[in-house]
Amino acid sequence: MLSVRDIARRVANGEISAHAALADSERRIAERDGDLRAFAARPETLAPGTGPLAGVAVGVKDIIDTADLPTGMGSPIYDGYQPRADAPIVMALKAAGATVAGKTQTTAFAFLDPAPTRNPHDPSASPGGSSAGSAAAVAASLVPLAIGTQTGGSVIRPAAYCGIAAIKPSYGLLPTVGVKPFSWSLDTLGLMAAGAGDLGFALAALTGRPDLDAPQAALAGLKLGLCRQDFTDRPEPACEEALQRIAALARKGGAAVLDLTTPPELAATFHAHGPLQNWEATQALAWEYARHRDELPPKLRAYLDEARATTPRDYDLARATARRGRQAAERWFAEVDLVLTYAAPGEAPETLASTGDSKFNRLWTLLGTPCLTVPLMRGPRGLPVSFQLVGRFGDDARVIAAARALERLILMPG
Amino acid sequence: MLSVRDIARRVANGEISAHAALADSERRIAERDGDLRAFAARPETLAPGTGPLAGVAVGVKDIIDTADLPTGMGSPIYDGYQPRADAPIVMALKAAGATVAGKTQTTAFAFLDPAPTRNPHDPSASPGGSSAGSAAAVAASLVPLAIGTQTGGSVIRPAAYCGIAAIKPSYGLLPTVGVKPFSWSLDTLGLMAAGAGDLGFALAALTGRPDLDAPQAALAGLKLGLCRQDFTDRPEPACEEALQRIAALARKGGAAVLDLTTPPELAATFHAHGPLQNWEATQALAWEYARHRDELPPKLRAYLDEARATTPRDYDLARATARRGRQAAERWFAEVDLVLTYAAPGEAPETLASTGDSKFNRLWTLLGTPCLTVPLMRGPRGLPVSFQLVGRFGDDARVIAAARALERLILMPG
Repeated sequence: MLSVRDIARRVANGEISAHAALADSERRIAERDGDLRAFAARPETLAPGTGPLAGVAVGVKDIIDTADLPTGMGSPIYDGYQPRADAPIVMALKAAGATVAGKTQTTAFAFLDPAPTRNPHDPSASPGGSSAGSAAAVAASLVPLAIGTQTGGSVIRPAAYCGIAAIKPSYGLLPTVGVKPFSWSLDTLGLMAAGAGDLGFALAALTGRPDLDAPQAALAGLKLGLCRQDFTDRPEPACEEALQRIAALARKGGAAVLDLTTPPELAATFHAHGPLQNWEATQALAWEYARHRDELPPKLRAYLDEARATTPRDYDLARATARRGRQAAERWFAEVDLVLTYAAPGEAPETLASTGDSKFNRLWTLLGTPCLTVPLMRGPRGLPVSFQLVGRFGDDARVIAAARALERLILMPG
Repeated sequence: MLSVRDIARRVANGEISAHAALADSERRIAERDGDLRAFAARPETLAPGTGPLAGVAVGVKDIIDTADLPTGMGSPIYDGYQPRADAPIVMALKAAGATVAGKTQTTAFAFLDPAPTRNPHDPSASPGGSSAGSAAAVAASLVPLAIGTQTGGSVIRPAAYCGIAAIKPSYGLLPTVGVKPFSWSLDTLGLMAAGAGDLGFALAALTGRPDLDAPQAALAGLKLGLCRQDFTDRPEPACEEALQRIAALARKGGAAVLDLTTPPELAATFHAHGPLQNWEATQALAWEYARHRDELPPKLRAYLDEARATTPRDYDLARATARRGRQAAERWFAEVDLVLTYAAPGEAPETLASTGDSKFNRLWTLLGTPCLTVPLMRGPRGLPVSFQLVGRFGDDARVIAAARALERLILMPG
């Protein structure tokens, strides 16, 4: 895969020009995207910017407003829709010198109906969703960086299915202004790249927070908690194997790894995700549902048909549960520095009809805690399987630092 | 002024048709809006809907997306801009049977550069801002209901200057999806109408929360705290007189009224509004500033020039201060049921060059607490002067109930 940090370094020291780096991405997209279908819209030419991300071509999920490219929301309802302004995240990319290589395919309104994108590791397997195009574009080495969004598990899950690194930062770290909302208490922007070092470098450049470009952590003395999220179903055995493998590596690196029991407040919070999302989604998509119900894809239509039954009272109870859950998570994180858990329930589903399940992501999205995944191993079907590192709210730098350390152990010869 | 509740009752019992009620507003707008300039865009005809707000013509602030009317943001940068979808608040109006009578004038991007709207009480005085057109349209009896937004004091202040009632509900009660953001932690939708009973009726209809249509509270036993917001400058004497007048009325009605000292955390929170808004506004308006700086009006341009100096660290500190402020407010509200304070620093400024000052509104906007104002009296220049009732976060029904009781005392012959 292309590395953000490598490209930035080579552009900075004059080894390659930003123009050449962009041309490389353009060539890769031209060659491979006909089959991959990661992009929904692309500019005619890529012009280099100035800044730490000069020469970095970026895929931007197509629910994010762009002033010079249409924004299709993965739905014919938004055919030809041209926003007036760039979303702040797009302006942040440009201000850091990056270049938008195109809009990446999204499931319609970032829900569960599959996008046309293929998984680069297996064209008959799902790339995941909803940030399908973003994950596939990075995994297929078309671009070094892509922007996705997560309301359930739409950043971490497609990254895990496509075998790339991704971070869903703490809620609110990246502004969601100009991003089509699905559930505003949950919607979170995330970054996808080849590795944790790339994520930290890009996140620091986009936020003006240099500490997020964290060097690798010393694992010795670090306390990692294994969380099996036993408030929901078991994952495929390969995911448990991945968790044990990363735990063993972390111990080898000097970290203390202990089994965590999940406080009951977190189990309750996991279940609050549903009503919370239901109520907000019926508001956020009120116009689309009332005026274009027949043009909504089947899963989203059926979901909104049902979600309308959620009452303000259900919503208030879910919010109160989430509030208690966030407090419980704060106490929980007093016991450990970071949590290790499953990134997804298995390898990418062997179908193009499903984008998989976000059950191992939803709790953390609702808690607003930073989540990061890096490539780890292959499962029995030869597809990527990985783990997820979760930190305390606001502890993004530590998550990045620990992920970089683990990543180094993963890549070290046995 | 036109009353939402009256119109709804008369439409419901067949006294007038929804069509006739809308035609009445249309006629009033046609007659008066040439001078008043409350509306920025209007539909060709007003078609009645079905529901509790059938026959209610509504002014919608022109930073709120509408699918069938342009959305100008008060700026030439958005000339002819036509959103694809209605914002959820607009869909909620329509679902409740209300009819959008037009988009109301806003200061550019809801900041401080005046809108063209006049104050119905005095054409040379400011109607306030940023929801100038919404306040003036209600005050001039063009429509019974209008939607505004508040980031500093943009709902309560213009309402006070124009002598109408308004509520800024608890943060998040009304979804801000499809509303042009200025500072997403602060931006709050609000309603403007003739009285507190209208506000409760409309808020209940828009949110599906019947308890918000609260009957008037028994004042006996109610504990009201007088807060003079002494962390900022003194208001004009008429505002202090208004506060004492409403306190005396409340006591006469049986309420206990006590002087409150402001906890230091709230003073700190008041000062945190600045950096918080600065950082978010530079993000939210990043595209407008980078691409159209010269087309921004002078106050907004100068503000954004300066706001850029705010750092992520300033922002983080402001957020932490706000968090402590919200906890302090919770403890403070354990001492009293509701807070009485100034709504604005004086009568409407005798100028069209300023929209006045939000200094008595900003703390509450940042705390996210519900605020309500109702007409009370006239100041030395013959313009409206009123007070503001503030409740605990989520206590909107109690604020409405108490305001209805106070309103009744205000209207009772001496």
